[in-house]
This record gives sequence, C-alpha cells and structure tokens, in this order.
Amino acid sequence: MSTFGTLFRVTTYGESHCASVGAIIDGCPPGLELSAQDVQTQLSRRRPGQSNLTTPRDEKDLVHLQSGVEHGVTLGTPIGLLVKNEDQRPKDYSETDLYPRPSHADYTYLQKYGIKASSGGGRSSARETIGRVAAGAIAEKYLKQAHGIEIIAFVSSVGKVHLFSSVSPARTDADEDNDEIEDALSPEFRALLVTVTREEVDKFPTRCPHLETSERMTKRIIRAKEAKDSIGGTVTCVLRNVPAGLGEPVFDKFEAKLAHAMLSIPATKAFEIGSGFRGTEVPGSKHNDAFVRWENGNLGTTTNWSGGVQGGITNGEDIYFRIGFKSPATISRAQETAQYNGTPGTLAARGRHDPCVVPRAVPIVEAMAALVVMDELLIQNARRTAVSLLPPITTLPPTMTLPIRK
Amino acid sequence: MSTFGTLFRVTTYGESHCASVGAIIDGCPPGLELSAQDVQTQLSRRRPGQSNLTTPRDEKDLVHLQSGVEHGVTLGTPIGLLVKNEDQRPKDYSETDLYPRPSHADYTYLQKYGIKASSGGGRSSARETIGRVAAGAIAEKYLKQAHGIEIIAFVSSVGKVHLFSSVSPARTDADEDNDEIEDALSPEFRALLVTVTREEVDKFPTRCPHLETSERMTKRIIRAKEAKDSIGGTVTCVLRNVPAGLGEPVFDKFEAKLAHAMLSIPATKAFEIGSGFRGTEVPGSKHNDAFVRWENGNLGTTTNWSGGVQGGITNGEDIYFRIGFKSPATISRAQETAQYNGTPGTLAARGRHDPCVVPRAVPIVEAMAALVVMDELLIQNARRTAVSLLPPITTLPPTMTLPIRK
Amino acid sequence: MSTFGTLFRVTTYGESHCASVGAIIDGCPPGLELSAQDVQTQLSRRRPGQSNLTTPRDEKDLVHLQSGVEHGVTLGTPIGLLVKNEDQRPKDYSETDLYPRPSHADYTYLQKYGIKASSGGGRSSARETIGRVAAGAIAEKYLKQAHGIEIIAFVSSVGKVHLFSSVSPARTDADEDNDEIEDALSPEFRALLVTVTREEVDKFPTRCPHLETSERMTKRIIRAKEAKDSIGGTVTCVLRNVPAGLGEPVFDKFEAKLAHAMLSIPATKAFEIGSGFRGTEVPGSKHNDAFVRWENGNLGTTTNWSGGVQGGITNGEDIYFRIGFKSPATISRAQETAQYNGTPGTLAARGRHDPCVVPRAVPIVEAMAALVVMDELLIQNARRTAVSLLPPITTLPPTMTLPIRK
Amino acid sequence: MSTFGTLFRVTTYGESHCASVGAIIDGCPPGLELSAQDVQTQLSRRRPGQSNLTTPRDEKDLVHLQSGVEHGVTLGTPIGLLVKNEDQRPKDYSETDLYPRPSHADYTYLQKYGIKASSGGGRSSARETIGRVAAGAIAEKYLKQAHGIEIIAFVSSVGKVHLFSSVSPARTDADEDNDEIEDALSPEFRALLVTVTREEVDKFPTRCPHLETSERMTKRIIRAKEAKDSIGGTVTCVLRNVPAGLGEPVFDKFEAKLAHAMLSIPATKAFEIGSGFRGTEVPGSKHNDAFVRWENGNLGTTTNWSGGVQGGITNGEDIYFRIGFKSPATISRAQETAQYNGTPGTLAARGRHDPCVVPRAVPIVEAMAALVVMDELLIQNARRTAVSLLPPITTLPPTMTLPIRK
Repeated sequence: MSTFGTLFRVTTYGESHCASVGAIIDGCPPGLELSAQDVQTQLSRRRPGQSNLTTPRDEKDLVHLQSGVEHGVTLGTPIGLLVKNEDQRPKDYSETDLYPRPSHADYTYLQKYGIKASSGGGRSSARETIGRVAAGAIAEKYLKQAHGIEIIAFVSSVGKVHLFSSVSPARTDADEDNDEIEDALSPEFRALLVTVTREEVDKFPTRCPHLETSERMTKRIIRAKEAKDSIGGTVTCVLRNVPAGLGEPVFDKFEAKLAHAMLSIPATKAFEIGSGFRGTEVPGSKHNDAFVRWENGNLGTTTNWSGGVQGGITNGEDIYFRIGFKSPATISRAQETAQYNGTPGTLAARGRHDPCVVPRAVPIVEAMAALVVMDELLIQNARRTAVSLLPPITTLPPTMTLPIRK
Repeated sequence: MSTFGTLFRVTTYGESHCASVGAIIDGCPPGLELSAQDVQTQLSRRRPGQSNLTTPRDEKDLVHLQSGVEHGVTLGTPIGLLVKNEDQRPKDYSETDLYPRPSHADYTYLQKYGIKASSGGGRSSARETIGRVAAGAIAEKYLKQAHGIEIIAFVSSVGKVHLFSSVSPARTDADEDNDEIEDALSPEFRALLVTVTREEVDKFPTRCPHLETSERMTKRIIRAKEAKDSIGGTVTCVLRNVPAGLGEPVFDKFEAKLAHAMLSIPATKAFEIGSGFRGTEVPGSKHNDAFVRWENGNLGTTTNWSGGVQGGITNGEDIYFRIGFKSPATISRAQETAQYNGTPGTLAARGRHDPCVVPRAVPIVEAMAALVVMDELLIQNARRTAVSLLPPITTLPPTMTLPIRK
Repeated sequence: MSTFGTLFRVTTYGESHCASVGAIIDGCPPGLELSAQDVQTQLSRRRPGQSNLTTPRDEKDLVHLQSGVEHGVTLGTPIGLLVKNEDQRPKDYSETDLYPRPSHADYTYLQKYGIKASSGGGRSSARETIGRVAAGAIAEKYLKQAHGIEIIAFVSSVGKVHLFSSVSPARTDADEDNDEIEDALSPEFRALLVTVTREEVDKFPTRCPHLETSERMTKRIIRAKEAKDSIGGTVTCVLRNVPAGLGEPVFDKFEAKLAHAMLSIPATKAFEIGSGFRGTEVPGSKHNDAFVRWENGNLGTTTNWSGGVQGGITNGEDIYFRIGFKSPATISRAQETAQYNGTPGTLAARGRHDPCVVPRAVPIVEAMAALVVMDELLIQNARRTAVSLLPPITTLPPTMTLPIRK
Repeated sequence: MSTFGTLFRVTTYGESHCASVGAIIDGCPPGLELSAQDVQTQLSRRRPGQSNLTTPRDEKDLVHLQSGVEHGVTLGTPIGLLVKNEDQRPKDYSETDLYPRPSHADYTYLQKYGIKASSGGGRSSARETIGRVAAGAIAEKYLKQAHGIEIIAFVSSVGKVHLFSSVSPARTDADEDNDEIEDALSPEFRALLVTVTREEVDKFPTRCPHLETSERMTKRIIRAKEAKDSIGGTVTCVLRNVPAGLGEPVFDKFEAKLAHAMLSIPATKAFEIGSGFRGTEVPGSKHNDAFVRWENGNLGTTTNWSGGVQGGITNGEDIYFRIGFKSPATISRAQETAQYNGTPGTLAARGRHDPCVVPRAVPIVEAMAALVVMDELLIQNARRTAVSLLPPITTLPPTMTLPIRK
C-alpha cells in the first residue's frame, strides 16, 4: 500500500503524468517550527534537471503545504502537501504502448491491476518519491532539533567505480584461510563515515564526496549516456547520534525496517548494514565489536562492524548501510524484446531518462532513513515513558537491571 | 513487535529459558489439511543438535497444536502452537552476568528495556525462530497445494568458501570498463536455482548442495569450532511458481517485504535479490531482462537478472535472493572487552553455541519467504477478485488494458 | 491517526481554516469508472449552506481529483483529492481565544498537543469529514456496481421527535414481566428499512423521510436556532444486499468496525445495531431470528432483530443501525463557564454553526458504512479466493462443511 | 483478525473444545511486577460455574504463564499464556449438527469459512474471551500502578429491570418540548459512578451493586432459566483517573476505539458513552459541560454529560459508558426454525448455557476497557515525550499554546 510507518506515517499519491503528486504526513510532533523551505531544500536535491548527469525532464517541484502548520509551527495534525506535475510530455512514451520496457514495471503493473497508466511509469515513476522526500525532510527537522541526529547519504559506487575501491585482486578461493575483512570497510571509509557532511557531498555532481572517484564516476555516467545506455550504483548512508534502544524485536528489528524502507525505493536490489556481506567471511573473534568505556561512562565500541545495531536494536554507535541500485531499465538504445502480445521486435524508448539514478537517490535514501528513525523513536518513547512511571523494582537479581546509557 | 503479516499473520512469544516458545498463526485459509507432522518436519530441520556442526543443546522441539485444526483440517481460526523448552542450563551463562557479549544483544536489550532475561539470549535467542518456522510450514503447505509453489533455500557460502565461487582475480579497479556481470550469477548457479530440491540440500550437513564445496565448508566450520571461534555465511533461496502480480507498490514492494522478513532473522546483515550488488555494476543494456513469449503464450524472460520482481511486483519468473549471516557473536574464545560497569576484562563465554548458523538458518529463511508470499498472495486475491466482479471497461484506449498472464 | 481501513484505506488531512482539506484513497479496485461527479454528489449533500437548518458558512466544496484515475477509469493506484477552504472568517472565533467552548474539543486538543489551531475547530472541525465522504462515495460506487449494495441513511430523531415514535407510556418498572419488544422496531419502521431510497430522503430538508415527523423536526430545529441553542438527534442507516460472510472474528467483528467507524464521526455518542439496547430487554425465545428457506434456496430470517450480523459476521439480511449525535457544542447563547486560565465568565460564541448536525450527517454515515463494507469485502475476497484454490476436503464429517449461500 | 491494539497488543487463539485457549500479550512495559495470580483473579470472575445464574460448565480456568516474566517481573517481551479446556462434552451439541442455532454464529461461520468446528461455538464461544481478560488484567495492573487508574464495571440492567430505573411514564411524544434529560443519568447513578468498587459489585451474584435491584434481576434471570429461555441486559463501566489527552483524532477517537472494543465482545449490540442516546434529546445549552476550575488549578466539569471524552480525546473526568448484551441465542426451549439444508423443524438445544451473560461479562468489559486505555496511553506517551524534547516555541500567538493539565 501507499502508507509507511506506525506512529510517524506517510501516505503518498501520484503518477508520472497526473495533476499533482503529494503526501499526507501524520504523527508529526506538535510544536515543531516548520516552513515550506525546510521541505523544499531536500526536494530540490531530488528534482530532475540538476545537472547533465540526470534526466532533462525539468520540474521545479515547488511544494505547497496544505495543512498541519500554522504561524510556522506544526499543530500535531496531518500535514498535507503537494507538488504539481508540470513538464509532462505523455506522447514521448508512445513506443511503450506496444512494448513493455524490459526490467521495468510496465508488464508487472498490468499483471497486477489489469490496467496501466497510459504513459510513462505511472505510479512506478520516480516522481512517486517526492512525497517520501518531503516527509523525510520533516522527520529530519525533528530529529535534528530534538536529538541532534545527522543523516548523510552519498554515492559509494557507479558501475565498477567504487569509492575507496580496493577490491583486492587476491580475493579468490585461495583466500579461504585469510581471516581478515577487506575492501569497503577500509580506515579511509570509516573515517569518512564520521566526518562527511551534506555540504561536502553536494560539491560533486555525482554526490560522491571524493574528487578523484567522483570524476571517474562522472566519466562512467557520461559513457552510459552517450551510449544511450544506463548504469547502476550504490548509495551509502550514515546516521549519527541516534539514541541507543531503538528497534523492535522480533519482526521489526531496526535493520529490518531499514531494509524494508530502502528496498521500497524504486530500482533498489540490495541492502547491507555494517560489514554486510563482507562481514560474513570473517570469524567472530575478528568481527565482534569489543566494548570500551567512553569518557562519559557509556559503553561503546571502536570497531563498529555491527553498523550501530545489535540484536535488532541500536547501540548508540553510528549506523551505516549501503543500498544497491540497478541500472535504470529505460534506455534509448535499441533492445531486442517482445511486444505485450508476444510479437518479437525492437524497442528504442524515447522519453527523458536518467542514465544513472544514484546521485538523485541520495536525498531519497536520507528521507527513508529519517522516516524509520522517527517512527522507531516514537515507539521507544512510548515504552520508555511508561517504564519511568512505575515504582522501582527491588526484587530482581542485580544482574538483570543495569544502568541505562547517558 | 512480535507480529508479522497483514492477512496471514504470525505472532510469537518465548525466551531461551522460559516454559515454552510458541506462536499464533492467524489468517490460515480454512479447509487445508494440516497435521502436526507438517510443522514438525521443518522444526526438526531447524532444531539444534542435528550434527557436529551445530550447538550441542539438545531439544526435541516437538510441536503441540492447540487450536484451529479439527479432524486434520484447518478451520480458518487462529492456530495456536507451542514447543516446550526442555534442555535448559541457565547456569551456563553466568559469565554474562558481568559482561555484555560483544556484538550480541545483551547490551542493547538493557538499553531498550532496562531489564534483561537472567540467562541466555532471552528473547534474542534463536529459539524465538521456532514460531516462525512453524508458521512458515503452514503457509508453505497451502502454497504448495494451491499454487504448486516451491521454496528451497541452501547455504551458498561459509566464510570465504563460496558455492560456484569464481570470484574473478580480475575484479579490480582496472575493470571499470568491463561491462560484464560476474561471479555468483554463473550458468552453474542459474542452473542450480532451477533444479535444486530440499532433499538434495539435506544430503549435506552444511546444507550446501554441492559435494566439493560442502566439504570445504565443513572444514571451515570445524576450524572455527576447534578455535572456539565462529564463522558467518550466506543462504540463497529460490521461490518457484509464484504467480505474477504479487507485491504492493509503493512501500510494500515484494522485495521490500522480503528484505524486512529476512533481516528480522537473528544475525542477518545483508540482503540482495536477483543480480543484487553485482548487478549494479553493469549497464542497463546488459542487465535488462528482454521479454520472450513462452509456449503457453505468456511473456517471460530468459536472463532473469531481476530475480523475478520488477517494479516491486512479481513477474512469474523464479524469485531468488541471498542473505548474509554474520559470524555468531557468542564464542568460547577469550575476548578483551568491558563489563557492564565499564571495567575492562576478559570474557570467555561458556554455554552451547553454534560455530556457524547458516545450516540451521535454511528452514528459517524458507519459513520467512513462505510468510511473505502467503501474505502478498492473499492481498492480491482481494484485489483480483474485486476486479473480476466489475463490468468490463469499454471506454479505455486499448493500450491501457492487456491480457493477464495465464 | 488519520487513516481508516486495512485494504481499502482512506487518509485525510485538513483543518477548518487551512488551504484545503483532502484525502488519499488507497486500495480502490482498478477498472472502476469514476468521475469527479460521482464524488461531488455526496459532497454536495454534506456541504454547509444547503438550507436554513444548517450553518450559513457557504462552501461550494468542489472536489479536485489529483491522481489514480485516467480516462474516467481507476488505475488501482491511490486517488488523491482535495477541496479548497474558501469561505474562511477566522476572526469570527476570537472569543474562543480566551474560553474553551464547553463540550467542544478546544480544551482536549490543548491537553493532547499543547497547541491548537488559532481559530475554529481546527482538525476537530466538521470539514474534516469531507475526505471521508469522498472516499465513501468511491467505495459506494464499487459496491453498487459489483454487488448491487445499497446504503441509505436517514434522520430518525431530532431532540425528542422520533420517527415512528410510539414510545409507550407503559414503559415503566411495571413492565418487567412484559416480554415484548417495543418502539423503534415497529412494523412501519421495518417496512421503511426495506423501501427507503436516497431520493425519498432528500425530499425533506431534515432528511427524515416522513412528512409529518419531518415537519415536527423542522420546528424543533428552528426552535433551537431561534434560541441560539442547538439540538441533537439520531441517524439510522440500512445496508441492503451485503453478501453473507463479511466481518472478522474476533476483534474485528462487522459491528465492531461499524461502531468504530460511526463513533469516529464528530459529535457521536451512541451506536446500536439491530434491536440494540431495546433488544436486551426481551428473552431469547422472542429475540432469536428463526431461520426460513428463501425461494432461492438460501437460509434467511424474517424477524432480523440481529440487524444482519450474527457472531460478528454478516448473514445476508439487511444491516441496520442507529447512531446518536449530541447537540452541537458551539452555541451563540451565553454560557457561564471558565476561561483557559480558570477565570469564571460568560461565553457567547460567534461564528457560524449548525443548530443540528443530523441532516448533514446523513452522507457522512453512509460514507463510513461504505468504507467498512468495502474493507471487509476485500478481506473476505482474499480468504474466499484462497479456499477456492484448495483441493476439496473429503475427510471431514459431513456436518462440518455445508453449502455456501447462493 | 485475532489481534487488538497498536502498541499494547493482544492476540488470542482457541475454540470451545480444542486443547487450550490462550493469548500473547505484546508491548507490556518491562519492570512491572506480575504474577499468575494477578491474571487469575479476573479469570475467576469470568469463569463459568460461579453461581446458579451461570452455565453449569465447570472450568477452573487456571492460567499458565509461558514467557515474558522472570522473578515476578515483566521483561518487556511478549507474555504467552494459556488455559486448558477441561470440562468438554462435545456430544452435547449434536442437535446443532443439523440446525444452525437461530441468532447464533453457526450459520455465519459456515458462510464465512465453508467449515465450522464440529461442536459448540467453536471460535465464537465465550471461551475466546479468556485471552482478553488475561491481557486486560495485565494492562490494568500497569494502569493502576503507574496512574492510579480504576476500572469498574457493573450490571445496569437485566431485561426490563434497570438500575435506578426511573423510566418516566411521561416519556411520550407529548414531551417534545421538555428539554430535560432523564432516566439513567439520575443523581443516584452519577453518585454511584464516583464511588462504586469492584468489591461492592462482587457482593451480588448479578454484579449489580444495589440490593433491591439485584434481587429483582436475580428473579428475572431465574425466570428465564426455568423457562429454558434467556435474557439480555446492559453493563455500565466507569474509568477513573484516566489522564487527559488520550485518543487519536480522527478515526481513532477514544470513544471509537472503546466502541470497537466493546462491540467485539460476543453478544453485544449497543454502546453509548456519557449521556448517549438520551443526551441527543436535549439542547446544547442543557447538555454542554461548563468548565470550572478545580482546587488543583485544572479545568474540569461538574456535569460530565460528555462521559469524559470531548472531540475524541479524554478530558480527565470520569469516563463512563454502557454496553447492551442481547439475550443469549442458545436456549433449551424448543424453537421453530430450519435445518442447514432448509428443512423446517424444531430445535431444542442441549448443552450448557448461560441464561444471562451480563454478570460474567463484567470482567470482560473491564478487560477491553483496560486494553483501550493502555494502548492510547502508550501512543500519547510517544507524542508527549517527543514534544518535551523540542526547544520552546516563542513565535506563536499566546492563545495557541496554553498550560497542560497538572
């Protein structure tokens, strides 16, 4: 369905070529200062037409707040908002009347609904993500103000160009007895997670905050564009200052909701948190994050292979994860395929497409992450406040209750 | 929370050392033949003590059905079931009274609840998965009977031992201009997805259905066990004969619910569907699954990089995905870490632990997959039946409605 | 929260004096012919300013469909819609800056949110019901087309003026041994349930489809209006042709969801289905609905004290229920009360108010009923279709399975 | 489905004649002292065989806690519990193999599921309510400890015997110009709401805390029993010390969730809060609850016609409501009706039945009320805590934010 979240909840509507796309954000805490500009900033980072690396579809994506805010402050009631669809050229898609685009949603929407929008991606269009980004921007504003939480995503690969790519040539079967963890979790990468800022990320059209890599990525995207082709990539995201204790065992572990959120973004195919797939290759003795006492008295870890989550619950360390986006399905290059009726033929899609979605996906990833943190935070508020109202327990063995993190 | 699903729903209870663990399965279609044995089969594949590769904790894990079934047929009412906890040795865990186990849930549960079970993993114990496996077995029985759906998971890596591991030594930065997809998606791997059976998988204690690889995996696990250490791995799962049209845009895409389900399994850190992370590296022209007409008139694809899902909706092809399990956190080997109170020290956990969880994770992965398919199928039933009762639409452009898959 | 429903789901936004009020309707079956006019008809029945019995606030309440419909046919995707707030006079409410209106939501919103809209009812305004009515109109269109379901509400009392009011003077303690059921369930009332139409209802400004009673009701409302006072009333609603088998035991019984829906309408305080409170007074032998065989072979009942629902599940008979609306809290007449700060004083509210809400509540009740039926229908579709795909059961005692209603 | 609640959630299983009935209670705050006896007390008030006014089925209904509690303290994890079905006599119900009991769920379950339990009420049996009562007892323990909340239900009518029944003989059409509110809301009734205790209620086998009325009720029930018939009644419930601010506009108003909860109890047909249906008959000027300042500085009301809820949100006053239970459908007296196959005939049910359910319904009503309050309280905790972490707002007009109730 088109709703995400339990206590902080976004519901979206809109297809690629209808009157507007929009969202209702329900459960926003009252008393939060909020302006349209707070939302617009992230929408503008998402909008098409930002550089020669993205689709030429030109949408200003101006947000119109409808409700839930008065005198620049949230009322606690649902925030309705919408963005008009303006630069529509439905005719552009006429080839796809006959052909389902390979690896696109054209065919599956028909299988699901028995009907599909007459042009463009319809509901599967990336314009659907506008509502998410708007909702995420509101969540993020709260998280920053109330908890100092920072959410920063960046492009970590385009095609085979990897940030801090040190994919070892040695990574073969011969390595079976090598117990070390490699690659993406290099010291440089770990340092970046601690320091990267949104401003730094936006200095690069690729949104990869590393000059040399970004240039190679740009080259890779241009190569795809010139070949009327497309290319995939990955986005990495880090969440800083998220309180310990978030995430609901059993089925709604923090990383489970995060994975759900991320794989609901169009074109995603993969998710990993912390050391991820690479971490499966090393023994526990190397992979476990030993505890240390920080200066403020809290326990913490220095290695953080866990990516800030243990047993489905945040531990107060930085949360970082990576999402894989496939290469966009819509390409102008001719493809041998079949029509809806089965007739074989050649499709060369017109329309305006992104050769690579990852630079524009960055604010979408941030938004979905903000929605997950916000929802889990509210749920944990409910419990923590409930506990605080009980009389202290005096009958338990001392090892069953221990001090909560400062 | 402890409930998963919308129309087919499982709710579980139980800690590692309480009276029993159990589940309520709600929404099971009435009229399904069901015996305790149907459930027991998968529980026995999950239970500890199956081989020298798993924990020596010896639980028979006999399931007791409480309700929802009469004369061997489901009534449509909730199915209550439980498995008693028998081989409990709470004393074994006394070291962990002082030390939170590194990378385990001990510390985060305390941060969340302010209290933790006095011994063992409590709710974070793998015994929690019994309810999932039982629920999945029931879903699976329905899916097999009503749709011929097959769900088969197997171990695809242990540490650095990969099934069909052909991790190319060429995979370095120099490859940036190589547009080919590599590794796990080899022809051998693709062939295995089509043919593998649960019987074949169970011939191997590792549950890796390839003799030579399985032997190397066994060796790797034994090496971990002898070192009082642990090792991670991956499980791959294939779903065959899943109808087209399942999955709910926008937020409940099929792969999003699948990722949610898989990352709710203890010790998971990564998920990918179809070509996954590897698929992000190749251009759309290579990655798109061109359509072909099958003999029955349906459209299909031969390459299936999409893994059976496009735009969040199943397309009728095989669905396959891979999950990364970290190396178990509990190891007997001494670890330098800190006590709950911050005092540095050395922890050498006693207790009975799996050196590697992936062989026992196989039925858990199958169960969670069955739960997702079952739930999405019921939801799509609701819509498809609703549409079938409407009068035919005659006013639409012919390209907006097209024949549904046979 | 602002979302209602499981598979057919409406989410609303909007306060009394913001830019617009609107809704997202999710889960509408694709392939339904739908125009703005289908929605407008019910909105216009709800809108203020229809007669001298309602608030003089004059809103055209024109609906703008944003998405989910193309070429006049639903796509199965969310339908976004909005109605602009036009005739706003926020200044009218300035007295209520100091005084919480007695029995209004002013005080409780502040207790809940710590902030309230600067004027009018904010989110508690009846304008919030626009989204419900729009969503209900869409559901109703489907229900009519696919199942021939009819939903008709009418005003059954205003103050002490009751339709078919034959409140027996004998109804005193002396009646304890009288086992008969009385009053509202008279033969005339039962006949009305079978025949009443929306057209008939709309012939009367009170929406009470009985000339003499309607005139007495009009008189009663005018009396309240002239006294700068207000008056309550009841609305009765009948649903015809609802299939048997809807409603989900245990917690989501049909009448439980219906009661939930009805008591979510502003100003409601009471709900009863079938014989309701009156039915509690007679013995089972008088109250039970004996079965008869209809000509089509189905079982049915002639008495229908149950109101079409037994054990929480519809039985195919007409469903009828009654909702009590209190007299509107906002009155222009002076009231002795206290300011927010506790200072006693006199409040005489300005602003434009309905002296009696029940005539305008009629389409709201119909809408909420349609939402409940639609949602339960989709949920039952899911199950019924699932069962139909199973092989027939041959092992059950014959008394456990019996033919389904035609 | 069989789950109720959002953050405090109960899921139940069990039919009348299966192995056990049980529940999983999820979301209980950790750190609550809880013993089986806390649950048993309410179960024993619900159990059959308590007096000659109830069914002779004799069940001890001993509860077995399975999980979620250690050393007498809740862990925050799900609490599994079960009660064995012991005194089963399935044969007793053989007549109902042929006949659907009039006004019972026999017929509708078949329409819904196509199959029904072979004997007794199956899932529609009152034994299903055991899980609710157990869950409610746990919620109640928390509510008492953390907020001093008291929940007391009592029988307010049996048949035409009403507590404080002063149904005026004058209540006829001639009263249209009488603006007074009458009957159930008499001063005596209002006084009872403030003072009644559970101990007082339990002094009477009818659970009507008024000697003379209780004796008349007993007489009425005995009359029904001797006639092999049954009789209905009403239960009134009061909640004291519920904080202001609970309830979620729009669709989840406090009274909407309460009505949902109450009408999910078997045999219920009606619900009203505060002045209810009677309150619809008087003008706003008489019905509005004027504000007064209490000694502690809070605003409150003396009249409380609203029943403690305004605009769907609690206002801190006592919450009181009334539920109508129909006369039990199962009677031993012969009834002319039809068989499942349509053949007319006479049914005289055997089995053990309550002639009147309201005395045993009292703890069920209390339990469902506790579940609603608990859930709404947790949800409001989430918001209130979120707001408390924001910086103070200085830019709002002073009339938009006002002090929260002490």
